[in-house]
Amino acid sequence: MSEFIAPLESLIEGFARLPGVGRKSATRYALAVLDMNDEDVMSFADSLAGAKTRIKRCKICGNFTDTDTCPVCDDTGRAPIICVVEDVRALMSIERVREYRGRYHVLGGVLSPMNNIGPDQLNIASLLSRISAEGVTEVIIATNPTVEGEATAMYLTKLLTPLGVKTSRLAYGIPVGADLEYTDAVTLMRALDGRRELN
Amino acid sequence: MSEFIAPLESLIEGFARLPGVGRKSATRYALAVLDMNDEDVMSFADSLAGAKTRIKRCKICGNFTDTDTCPVCDDTGRAPIICVVEDVRALMSIERVREYRGRYHVLGGVLSPMNNIGPDQLNIASLLSRISAEGVTEVIIATNPTVEGEATAMYLTKLLTPLGVKTSRLAYGIPVGADLEYTDAVTLMRALDGRRELN
Repeated sequence: MSEFIAPLESLIEGFARLPGVGRKSATRYALAVLDMNDEDVMSFADSLAGAKTRIKRCKICGNFTDTDTCPVCDDTGRAPIICVVEDVRALMSIERVREYRGRYHVLGGVLSPMNNIGPDQLNIASLLSRISAEGVTEVIIATNPTVEGEATAMYLTKLLTPLGVKTSRLAYGIPVGADLEYTDAVTLMRALDGRRELN
Repeated sequence: MSEFIAPLESLIEGFARLPGVGRKSATRYALAVLDMNDEDVMSFADSLAGAKTRIKRCKICGNFTDTDTCPVCDDTGRAPIICVVEDVRALMSIERVREYRGRYHVLGGVLSPMNNIGPDQLNIASLLSRISAEGVTEVIIATNPTVEGEATAMYLTKLLTPLGVKTSRLAYGIPVGADLEYTDAVTLMRALDGRRELN
């Protein structure tokens, strides 16, 4: 027998499906919902129910959008540079910096033979067609610095080089504010590799 | 202008209303929802939308229930002892211990003149009428050990004593596993006050 009455139990199970939310936090959230006013709960439930239908993928870059194309692709002032990211989380992180003023391309994952994710499962074909269609001058590959992210970056470079487009990769190195003593060996090695001349 | 498209923004706002959830966690939850399968999202939204209507207060004790009375009050095997708690969270905590086999009464708060909460705003009248109706032999007052909780306990004792029912209060003292060195002065004083003779 469950500890709670059925409707409360199903609400707790809903919250417990979220990343990093255990049963205890889920129970806390569920009880908080019961204390909220009806209007707030209904608008929350409505945005949840509509999320998957209202939020679509941009036809050009794969970013989230509520129309056909996303606000980034609609922005005509963006330079013809494409930053290739694994997912929308990465895109958001880069946008938050407000430094990059180019376009994006969301792969929707990385190559991972172990999980049966090959080039066909990723958003790669549309990236290649964008190169000439948008007159792209540079592709910045910003996949994560993991084994899969690296392999994907190498694979993309091989596809892009014959198209005559400049490809680059985000710099590896010591994060700002970090301590050399606590930096792992691989990162230090990459930081040495990528050292820059001082003028 | 918002950082996100409207439907995503409203979903994030929904999650951010939960206790202890900031904008960053709310964004993480919202993006996780977009990765869930449709069925899970719809059942989550459904339990959320129905929560306030399906989950009612027990007519007897004030606990959450989906029928007229709660599973605790429906349990005829419970002793005629009433444990008075501030809210359902406290009731759940005591039930979880599986030691107490009496009934409950949920006040729905504590006396707090600062917040305009007087006896009429609490579930007190129905507690008094339960004493004779259920032949209650003891009332355990389990409000929190805060100023308001104490004041409420004293107020209830004054109301209950003339009814000829035994009233008691949860014991104060050093929590099991704690260290005397780090126990605050008030708790230590209460622990001394409430000392028990060893046989």
